Amino acid sequence: MADQITPREKDFSQWYQDVVIQSRLADYSPVKGCMVIRPNGYAIWERIQRQLDDEIKKTKTKNAYFPLFIPESFLQKEAEHVEGFAPECAVVTHAGGKKLEEPYVVRPTSETIINSMFAKWIQSYRDLPMKINQWANVVRWEMRTRLFLRTTEFLWQEGHTCHKNGEESEAFTIEMLKVYQKFAEEVLAIPVIAGLKTESEKFAGALRTYCIEAMMQDKKALQAGTSHNLSTHFAEAFETKYLDHDGQEKFVHQTSWGVSTRLIGGLVMTHSDDRGLVLPPRVAGLHVVVVPVFGKATKDLELKKRLLEKSQQLVDAIKEECKKLDYSIEIELDADENKKPGWKFHEYEMIGVPIRIELGPRDLDQDHVIATRRDLSEKQTIKMDKLPRWVCSQLVQMQKDLLEKARKFREDHTHQASSFEEFEGLMKDQGGFVEVPWSLDAESEKKIKERFKATPRCILLDEANKPIRVQQPCFTTGKILPEGNVKVIFSKSY
Amino acid sequence: MADQITPREKDFSQWYQDVVIQSRLADYSPVKGCMVIRPNGYAIWERIQRQLDDEIKKTKTKNAYFPLFIPESFLQKEAEHVEGFAPECAVVTHAGGKKLEEPYVVRPTSETIINSMFAKWIQSYRDLPMKINQWANVVRWEMRTRLFLRTTEFLWQEGHTCHKNGEESEAFTIEMLKVYQKFAEEVLAIPVIAGLKTESEKFAGALRTYCIEAMMQDKKALQAGTSHNLSTHFAEAFETKYLDHDGQEKFVHQTSWGVSTRLIGGLVMTHSDDRGLVLPPRVAGLHVVVVPVFGKATKDLELKKRLLEKSQQLVDAIKEECKKLDYSIEIELDADENKKPGWKFHEYEMIGVPIRIELGPRDLDQDHVIATRRDLSEKQTIKMDKLPRWVCSQLVQMQKDLLEKARKFREDHTHQASSFEEFEGLMKDQGGFVEVPWSLDAESEKKIKERFKATPRCILLDEANKPIRVQQPCFTTGKILPEGNVKVIFSKSY
Repeated sequence: MADQITPREKDFSQWYQDVVIQSRLADYSPVKGCMVIRPNGYAIWERIQRQLDDEIKKTKTKNAYFPLFIPESFLQKEAEHVEGFAPECAVVTHAGGKKLEEPYVVRPTSETIINSMFAKWIQSYRDLPMKINQWANVVRWEMRTRLFLRTTEFLWQEGHTCHKNGEESEAFTIEMLKVYQKFAEEVLAIPVIAGLKTESEKFAGALRTYCIEAMMQDKKALQAGTSHNLSTHFAEAFETKYLDHDGQEKFVHQTSWGVSTRLIGGLVMTHSDDRGLVLPPRVAGLHVVVVPVFGKATKDLELKKRLLEKSQQLVDAIKEECKKLDYSIEIELDADENKKPGWKFHEYEMIGVPIRIELGPRDLDQDHVIATRRDLSEKQTIKMDKLPRWVCSQLVQMQKDLLEKARKFREDHTHQASSFEEFEGLMKDQGGFVEVPWSLDAESEKKIKERFKATPRCILLDEANKPIRVQQPCFTTGKILPEGNVKVIFSKSY
Repeated sequence: MADQITPREKDFSQWYQDVVIQSRLADYSPVKGCMVIRPNGYAIWERIQRQLDDEIKKTKTKNAYFPLFIPESFLQKEAEHVEGFAPECAVVTHAGGKKLEEPYVVRPTSETIINSMFAKWIQSYRDLPMKINQWANVVRWEMRTRLFLRTTEFLWQEGHTCHKNGEESEAFTIEMLKVYQKFAEEVLAIPVIAGLKTESEKFAGALRTYCIEAMMQDKKALQAGTSHNLSTHFAEAFETKYLDHDGQEKFVHQTSWGVSTRLIGGLVMTHSDDRGLVLPPRVAGLHVVVVPVFGKATKDLELKKRLLEKSQQLVDAIKEECKKLDYSIEIELDADENKKPGWKFHEYEMIGVPIRIELGPRDLDQDHVIATRRDLSEKQTIKMDKLPRWVCSQLVQMQKDLLEKARKFREDHTHQASSFEEFEGLMKDQGGFVEVPWSLDAESEKKIKERFKATPRCILLDEANKPIRVQQPCFTTGKILPEGNVKVIFSKSY
């Protein structure tokens, strides 16, 4: 029998690790801080890739691939960038049996190496916009790592685009932010808040960083994706210029944006429970499992044959019906007699198969099956002829329900504060997200980080995607900025 | 206007480089020996990945992901392996601002790191077979590099499997060899010879290496994929053992197998011509382009509108019809008035769009279009109502024709020799593949390599996938081995 999972109530962090390890999403590797993504985890990543890639392509962005190695001097061309990333870099000093003349860093992100190519490819306004994405591994040397959430090496996509001017680059930064938000909510069933990072939390080298922030079941925030307006910072460093209509050479305005395998950690911490993984159908690697429970059929070969035939018919009928869905589903018939039904049910709960169907000899007589939705756990009796439709509709419903459940959870744990006292009370007693009017005062940001380990997750945006401005006094300083204060969410985070 | 492509006859190597650069498949990067795969090249890789991945999954192999870094000591555990790969390794000595206690090599291949996990995951015969594949980047420090064919970093898939015994691992090695052969021929339209490598050419650490070998248009061989029977070599080094039915602990028997972005180079050198890329439809990123030729419609807005509407109708009808194909097609309507039709035709020839369709005002009146298949270059007049079917059938036909053309080319340049004199004559006058009866004599292998720069590409196999044995005297020594000589192909190669 598998090990027990530590309950969330007892130790959330240990629960997370238990679920990831026991559902075989990932494992620790012999390389410090690096994980192995096992088939159950990689199947989720493939679903994420396939569906997000489709959305990225709809923005006319094309995939490409750039070198893993970056000459150390490239990193140094953008001052903030090198300061942010140099301490986290892995450095190749020797290769082919010799010491290298110039060391290479293993890419922590690719703005610099990609700009060296943009500078070569872009000559005129006709070459713009240029929109490139790559799916790649990156390395950031982390001291404290956690499976999926923070690992030395991780997989991600990084988009890099060039535009004629600041309006266009800002508009595209927002466009990708919205792509991420829609993807997180519709595909991952993770509700997110799309907002703007403060100066202290923005990407090293960006003018502005936008992000999507989710709330995990322990009420902490998880940054699930970022979209940066880079302005001309890297273009200036790499001389990425174009000849405009007016005959002037101008720097391109750039964006970059990424999500990573961290999303898999977010999926676990948003939906799973004390019995293991719960997955939104759109990203599950296996959607439906049909388990014949042989019982008295074990020795009655004629009965066993009928049971297996009926099981296979159901599998085929469900497959056919589920072609209606706009994603492909995987369905398995598990007739392995070496494993007991109880063991199988536990296993399929653990790995988060959305729908489990059992049928035994008696069900065969009564023309029904016993079906269980992973997130509800109540067994239901479903007539066989109704089963394919039921499965298909439940997959759709489960996807919605998980999103709504997570949204309700977040709403229940989001609070407003207008003074520091209120803020302090909420931080100590409630946790979760605390929304405050703020003057962006750096001193209080530092103090809050020290005292509560909480940071500003994001500045809230209005419908025009500009920071909401309010005339409420700052919750720490009491001041009101001339342009109004911003609304910001503070929270502990991953 | 784009630069000229050097004709193949004049300088094959320069022609190859011109085609790759001018069709924007790839570009040189500022990192020594590393290339950038541009969108046109990456679209081909995505098609390769998608279709090969489906075939790999049919063998019940699952995708996973293992760390980029390998502790140096791991590489040293298998004697032949370290000897083969250590000189090519890139080494990370510093990370996170500190010198590492043990250096990491950037994976040149992952047998060692994966075995460290297999040893943890495999306990009993119930865990076998275990079949894992990863799509990843690998690094081998190469002195002389060529775009796609030999680069310091490249993308590939590497499969790694564990089996109970040597029969099973041998059977699976062959199974994957056949998967590659079928894939190369049916998807890439590259005919290949599946054979066995000699001792001198096998993978460092393998018992046996099987390969698929293709002939390029310059008559040189390209190794397009390999499948290795690793026996227990790595299992012994990493203690990868299982408890068998009989209560005995036994080493697992392993395989590994891979193909890489080199296949894109193979595609270019097999099918392309002096006007640019020619791509088999199954791997083309863009299949059909419809170009309205405005002519007198440029200023007649009503006529222009009709021309554009008709073009769009044709695009839609072709899309609908091509849903019959078992791969998705991309089709573009290029109505850009800033570029001249002649420029566009040159461009679409260069980047290898399989089918180009033109229609102008006169064609509109006559209810037909002018269509050109990239590999044939003859313009054809096709009635509009027949066009969707014509396109669909021509895509199928072109795929077949390219394979047959390449097969005929290989057959025309494959010769038999029974003596060294014959062999020498063929090598000097003809080039191509020379098939000989051989006693596997290492001395003559060395001599031939020095004198003709040719190597044994592979030992031919019979229907049972064993080396063909013949009673013909060895072409160099005149001897006949007790078990018979083998049939082997010698050739210059990439």
